[in-house]
Amino acid sequence: MLRALIFCIFISISGLITAQPAEAPASPHNPRSVILIIGDGFDDQHVTMGRNFLAGHDGELVIDTLPVRAAVQVQTVGKDTQWVYVADSANTATTLATGVTTQMGRVGTSATDEDLVTIAQRANAAGFKTGIVSSSSVTDATPASFMSHVSSRGCENPDIILGGELYSVAYEGCPQDATVNGGPGSIAEQIVKAPIDVILGGGLSHFTTSDPKSGKTAIMMAESLPVSIVTDPAMLTQADSNQRLIGLFATGHLPVRLQGSDGRGAEQPDTSTLNKLDWRLGSVTQPDPIKCEPNPAYGNTPGLAKLTEVALDRLTQDNDTGLFLMVESASIDKESHVRNPCGSLGEIAQLEEVVSVALTFAQTHPETLIIVTSDHAQAAQIIPEPSLYADIPVPVYSPGHVARLIMPDGSLMTINYATNGFVSEEHTGANVPLFANDVGQGLIPAFLRQREVHDVMASFLGL
Amino acid sequence: MLRALIFCIFISISGLITAQPAEAPASPHNPRSVILIIGDGFDDQHVTMGRNFLAGHDGELVIDTLPVRAAVQVQTVGKDTQWVYVADSANTATTLATGVTTQMGRVGTSATDEDLVTIAQRANAAGFKTGIVSSSSVTDATPASFMSHVSSRGCENPDIILGGELYSVAYEGCPQDATVNGGPGSIAEQIVKAPIDVILGGGLSHFTTSDPKSGKTAIMMAESLPVSIVTDPAMLTQADSNQRLIGLFATGHLPVRLQGSDGRGAEQPDTSTLNKLDWRLGSVTQPDPIKCEPNPAYGNTPGLAKLTEVALDRLTQDNDTGLFLMVESASIDKESHVRNPCGSLGEIAQLEEVVSVALTFAQTHPETLIIVTSDHAQAAQIIPEPSLYADIPVPVYSPGHVARLIMPDGSLMTINYATNGFVSEEHTGANVPLFANDVGQGLIPAFLRQREVHDVMASFLGL
Repeated sequence: MLRALIFCIFISISGLITAQPAEAPASPHNPRSVILIIGDGFDDQHVTMGRNFLAGHDGELVIDTLPVRAAVQVQTVGKDTQWVYVADSANTATTLATGVTTQMGRVGTSATDEDLVTIAQRANAAGFKTGIVSSSSVTDATPASFMSHVSSRGCENPDIILGGELYSVAYEGCPQDATVNGGPGSIAEQIVKAPIDVILGGGLSHFTTSDPKSGKTAIMMAESLPVSIVTDPAMLTQADSNQRLIGLFATGHLPVRLQGSDGRGAEQPDTSTLNKLDWRLGSVTQPDPIKCEPNPAYGNTPGLAKLTEVALDRLTQDNDTGLFLMVESASIDKESHVRNPCGSLGEIAQLEEVVSVALTFAQTHPETLIIVTSDHAQAAQIIPEPSLYADIPVPVYSPGHVARLIMPDGSLMTINYATNGFVSEEHTGANVPLFANDVGQGLIPAFLRQREVHDVMASFLGL
Repeated sequence: MLRALIFCIFISISGLITAQPAEAPASPHNPRSVILIIGDGFDDQHVTMGRNFLAGHDGELVIDTLPVRAAVQVQTVGKDTQWVYVADSANTATTLATGVTTQMGRVGTSATDEDLVTIAQRANAAGFKTGIVSSSSVTDATPASFMSHVSSRGCENPDIILGGELYSVAYEGCPQDATVNGGPGSIAEQIVKAPIDVILGGGLSHFTTSDPKSGKTAIMMAESLPVSIVTDPAMLTQADSNQRLIGLFATGHLPVRLQGSDGRGAEQPDTSTLNKLDWRLGSVTQPDPIKCEPNPAYGNTPGLAKLTEVALDRLTQDNDTGLFLMVESASIDKESHVRNPCGSLGEIAQLEEVVSVALTFAQTHPETLIIVTSDHAQAAQIIPEPSLYADIPVPVYSPGHVARLIMPDGSLMTINYATNGFVSEEHTGANVPLFANDVGQGLIPAFLRQREVHDVMASFLGL
């Protein structure tokens, strides 16, 4: 509290002199750390879904107890330099990592395909330890944007970077980024060489896919480098502490913790034949309620909080400078795309646990700025159960997919997914929330653009 | 800034002593004022739509410049006392006005049908001047909840309170609230008697509807009271300053400022016959883009900012105590219900103008707490233009209604409405944003429940 008083006097006096917003001192104290926690797709609908399910409708999430809350404007540049109003995880993570607004699909590259030095790379160059932890493949857009540079997010391994077929559609790849063309290589190839001390998540398959010309995989390329690659969670705490550590605990993304009962997600309401002829007639049957239950595929997957603890343990060894750690709860978004609210909720629980780990770390490392934010908004909406118009003698129902979740207290929370009828929902364009611990007070304004989140972190670390 | 320093020292020292969150001094200074600005349905999707359209995608709204931003958990009690996760404007306005969580549809009454004294009524009793301004009928849920008490929001006039038909459906009314049954009367009847100094908005028809038994209208009941009722905007500044003022400038809600070109709102994408047979086949034609243009019906309707200025002028005459003023931009919500994004955007512009008026007022009345918030989230979503999956050889489109807005810079912002297929969209359940001026710093935490917004205002006024 005395620290708060001194800080207040500092900003008040500096305000008297300059009449400018408060800024962090230019040169950082040591050790000074940033933990950036990204909930992919973790917009205000998902925050509220998480609160209602995990803490109760009158409860508080851990993030709700943080003293700083801001709104972040998500920005994307179109191919013709006009703004586009909805982003993806590649361009937004690139903006968070570099402070530069770019085009959808780009990983660590500008709209003119320049490689952008990321905050993790600059932190490393300045002597900070660095870590990237994600529940996705570590080659996926968000983690990749902090440690690699390709023109298109699909270029995750040495095969696909040369083009081919992706998601059953022809894909041009990123030929200019391929090593055979003098580029830095695919995301997996760049990751094994990246100046990041700890990289934990999924994505093993991209490290075992070989370059069709040389026959080499990213793991083979790593053999001559001072990096341990582990795939067994039991090895996490036993890896050589003098080497960089890459832990890959699934072939693709890490499995999610929860699923809907019987594997069910959101479903289309079932309408009578008469209603199909005229929306005012006939009847509708809503999908049966579902419960959230453990996902059997989760098995012994290491939790995101555990991975965060391991990363922090390693990064604080022999470290007087500080650290930059990015942790992503990736599948809030992925499960929203495929309309599985229980899947998203389990990953919000994982994000909450990571925040708790970060707050515990900050207790013994007081110069730690913890920022929790989202990259972009998503499709899910909490809608009334029943409809606001339930008394009207007309069948009223979502034209999309709905899941009626049985909450711990027995009430029903209904989630709507209706941005398209395809197998994967669209992102949406709302500004996203940002939460920060007390160290962020005075540094983070109530409203900022996504590139400015990067700037706050970089300024705090003196980068 | 010196004030900020003193404030910081105050909270820091009080924190040292009590280790409790900072609180306002128990007894208010004089004059001390609260201006509560409610954007109905003004959730983060609408905030972002407004920012993109009014300030530009890289710009800032007036609310974005306010130093305090928080998230508000919207809460509603069901008939069986279980939580329900989506609210309406009646129960949320009642919570903001009284600090009590209640059931949908209730106006100034608890879940057990008790009449709840509102902050406006308590402010009046404590000597503050009070005002209610809305772009809806002043008998509509939000304004009504600050100055009247009925069990159901439809009971706006002395006829319907006894039941009948509302929106072509049988309606039970609020017979226990009717004057013939010893109750306080319909909302219009209560408003003419309410201890509110200035009431401005629409809703004249409810004041000219007669009680079927006595034949009296609310306006006739007002004849013996010290209240001026004006319907001509030119009379706004000429009304007797020694009387209460009720200004009613439309028979129903005030017309909105903007509409879509050719009166168009969101429309359903047009799909080919083949696509109707199988979602993977055929083609889709998206609705033509639309521009936002002035609504001819708006005519000489007084703007919400003008009404706010008039209210503040009257409320500050001979006033050493302070004031409570609630201003609602009502039709952000109403236009979202009927899928008219241009309509919502024009009303967001009006809200912005009201915030500017309030900030100007606060310059000469420094003990003014300005809070801008929403009552509940709404259906609109900004979705990608084109789809994220535009490269997939399958028609991908919203199952609901979309409007492709031509922005001032020529880019397209697409808005999706897809919570139902009825003539009016559903509300949604996300927490809503709250913005406050510097006076709110230290008083408003980063996260609060809607009832606590009331508590902050009441505490600030010493009520």
